[in-house]
Amino acid sequence: MATLKEMFIEQLTDAYAAENQIIEALPRLARAAKDEELKQAFQHHLEETRGHVERLDRIFSELGESPDKRKTCKGMKGLLEEGEEAIEKHSGSPSRDALLIGGAQKVEHYEIALYGTLRAWAEELELDGVAELLDENLDEESSADEKLTSIAEGGLVESGINEEATAGR
Amino acid sequence: MATLKEMFIEQLTDAYAAENQIIEALPRLARAAKDEELKQAFQHHLEETRGHVERLDRIFSELGESPDKRKTCKGMKGLLEEGEEAIEKHSGSPSRDALLIGGAQKVEHYEIALYGTLRAWAEELELDGVAELLDENLDEESSADEKLTSIAEGGLVESGINEEATAGR
Repeated sequence: MATLKEMFIEQLTDAYAAENQIIEALPRLARAAKDEELKQAFQHHLEETRGHVERLDRIFSELGESPDKRKTCKGMKGLLEEGEEAIEKHSGSPSRDALLIGGAQKVEHYEIALYGTLRAWAEELELDGVAELLDENLDEESSADEKLTSIAEGGLVESGINEEATAGR
Repeated sequence: MATLKEMFIEQLTDAYAAENQIIEALPRLARAAKDEELKQAFQHHLEETRGHVERLDRIFSELGESPDKRKTCKGMKGLLEEGEEAIEKHSGSPSRDALLIGGAQKVEHYEIALYGTLRAWAEELELDGVAELLDENLDEESSADEKLTSIAEGGLVESGINEEATAGR
C-alpha cells in the first residue's frame, strides 16, 4: 500500500514527463502562431518550462530520488494530441491563433491543478523547501495562463486575436 | 477556412462530449471515495454536471445547432484514463482519497480552461445569452475545484484528507 510520499514521487514523475512533453510541443505552437506577441509568449514559456524541469531535478535530488525518464504523462499526451489535431485541421484559418491560445490554456490549467496538488502534499509531508520550488513553478504557470488571456483579449479594447477572428464570422 | 463561429461550435461539441464522459466517470469516483464529505461532493457534482449538459443543450438550440453525440473529447479521455489507472493501482491505500481529489481537480481545470475560452469567444461573437449560460457552468466548475481543495485541506486545521494520508508516511 502506497504512502502519500510514494504517491508524491509518482505525481512528481508525471509532472517531469509532462514538462518535457511540453518542451517538445512548444516550438510547434510558436511556429504555428501568426500573431507576433503570441509567438513570443510561446518562446518565452519554452524558456520558463526548461526552468521548471531544472526545479523538478532539484526536487528529485533533494529527495534522494531520480525521475523515471521513460515515463509519458498520459493526461498531457491527450491534451497535446487534441491541440495538434485542431491546429492541423484549421491551418490557414484566420481564427487559428484563438484556437492555439485555447489549447495552450488547457495545458496550463493541467499544470496548475497538478502543481497545486503537489504543493499541498509537500506541505503535508513537511517538505518546505520542495513546496517552495513547486510554488515557483505554479506561479509561472498561472502567469503564463493570464498572459494568454490578455493576448486573446488584447486588453479588451485594442484589436485582440478574438476580435480579429470575428472579422470573418 | 473555419470562422470563429465554426470553431466555437466545435469546441462546444467538445464540451458536450467532455461533460457526458464526466457523468459516466463520477459514480465510480463517488464509490471509490472513503471520506464521506468527498463522496457527497462527487455525488453533488454529478447533479451539477447534468445541469451543465442541459445548459449546453439550450445553447445548441439557441444557435440552431445540435451536438454530435458520437464525439469523444480526447483531452478528457486522457485525463479520465490517467485518473482511473491511478485509482486502480492504489486501491486499498489510505492515501487514495488525496489522489482522487488530485485527479478530479485536473478534470475541473480542463473545464475551467475550456469554458473560459468558450465564454470569451461567445462575447466576441456577441452571443450574450450564450456567454451567460457558459459563465454559469464555469462558475460551478470553479466552485467544485475550490470545494475539493477545502476537503483536502480540511480547513487547514481539522484532520483533512492529506493529513490522514501522512499518518502512514
